[in-house]
Amino acid sequence: MNLHEKTVTTKKIFEGKVITLRYDTVLLPNGEEAGREIVEHPGGVAIVALDEEENVYLVRQYRHPFEKILLEIPAGKLNYGEDPFSCGVRELKEETGLSAKQFDFLGSFMVSPGFCREKIYIYLARGLSAGNMNLDPDEFLEVEKKPLADLLNLIMANEIEDAKTVIGILKVNEYIKRER
Amino acid sequence: MNLHEKTVTTKKIFEGKVITLRYDTVLLPNGEEAGREIVEHPGGVAIVALDEEENVYLVRQYRHPFEKILLEIPAGKLNYGEDPFSCGVRELKEETGLSAKQFDFLGSFMVSPGFCREKIYIYLARGLSAGNMNLDPDEFLEVEKKPLADLLNLIMANEIEDAKTVIGILKVNEYIKRER
Repeated sequence: MNLHEKTVTTKKIFEGKVITLRYDTVLLPNGEEAGREIVEHPGGVAIVALDEEENVYLVRQYRHPFEKILLEIPAGKLNYGEDPFSCGVRELKEETGLSAKQFDFLGSFMVSPGFCREKIYIYLARGLSAGNMNLDPDEFLEVEKKPLADLLNLIMANEIEDAKTVIGILKVNEYIKRER
Repeated sequence: MNLHEKTVTTKKIFEGKVITLRYDTVLLPNGEEAGREIVEHPGGVAIVALDEEENVYLVRQYRHPFEKILLEIPAGKLNYGEDPFSCGVRELKEETGLSAKQFDFLGSFMVSPGFCREKIYIYLARGLSAGNMNLDPDEFLEVEKKPLADLLNLIMANEIEDAKTVIGILKVNEYIKRER
C-alpha cells in the first residue's frame, strides 16, 4: 500500500523562542487534500548520570504546561545544528555541576511524531565527578539523587511521567543488564 | 527553594484541529517576567496488544513531520473529556480490528512537559480476538505483528524511535516479568 503524503503548500503561523508552528496541506494516498499542523522544535538531549552505587541524578523543576513540579533527568535544548553529545556534556554540567569520564549513547526518540518534530537524544554518563552548577538566569531547579531500582519502581507505579525520564531509566536498566 | 511560576497573561495564538497554541507571560521565582509558548493537545491512548505467543501488533504509518513511515503501536487521540480506556478499546478496534478480553493500565506519560500539554495513556491488551478494521477516511496504515523480544532489541538498537512505542514495549517487558 502507498502510505506517503505529498506536501502541497506550507505556511509559517508563529515563530517563537522554543517552537515554530507551520500549517501544511498534503495530498493523501487517496488523492484527497488534508491539513497538517506541524510544531518545529530544535530537539534536546537528556542524561542519565549514574554513580558507582547505581544512584541517578535528577532535577526538580516547575513545568508551566502542567502547572506542576516534575522530577526529571537533566536535559536541555539543542541549538539548531549543534552536536547532541556536546550539548549533553554542557547540560549535565550546567544543571548538576557533574562531569563524566564515560558517555554511552542510548538512542533517540520522537516525542510525538504525529505533529511535532522534536527528537530527544539520551546518553548514559558514568565515572562522575562533582563541580559547580551554572544555571541559565531564568532556570530554577533542585538536584537530588535516587537509586536506579527505586526509579524503576516509581515509573512502574506511574509516579514519574516525563517521557525522557521514563525512557532514560527503562533503557539504562536494560542496557546495564545486557552489559553484565 | 520556591520553584513556582505565576501566570500573568495568557493569549491564544492559533486554534487547529489537533493543537492549540497559546503564549503566556509568567512571573519567575526571582520576580522577573518570562514568556512561555504552550501547545495544548487533547492527549491520546496507545495499546500494546500482546497475543498468546508474545507477539505485539504494530501499525506502519506515514508521519508528515519527519516525512517518514514509522512502526508504532496502535494509538489515537482522545476527544476532550473522553475516558482513556474507552478510547483505547475503540482505537485498537479501528486500527487493527482486534478486541481484547483483558486491559491492564500501564501508566501515562507527558511527551514534552516543557512546552506541551499532551499526555498519552498506555494499556496492555490480552485475550485478543480478530475482527474488521474501521479506519477514518483520512487514515492509511498497515498492520503487522512482531515478537516482543525482537521489538525490545529494535528499541535498544535505536531502530524504533516513537516515544509511545518505546515506552509501551519497555513497560510491558518489565510488567510481564513482574507478573511471573
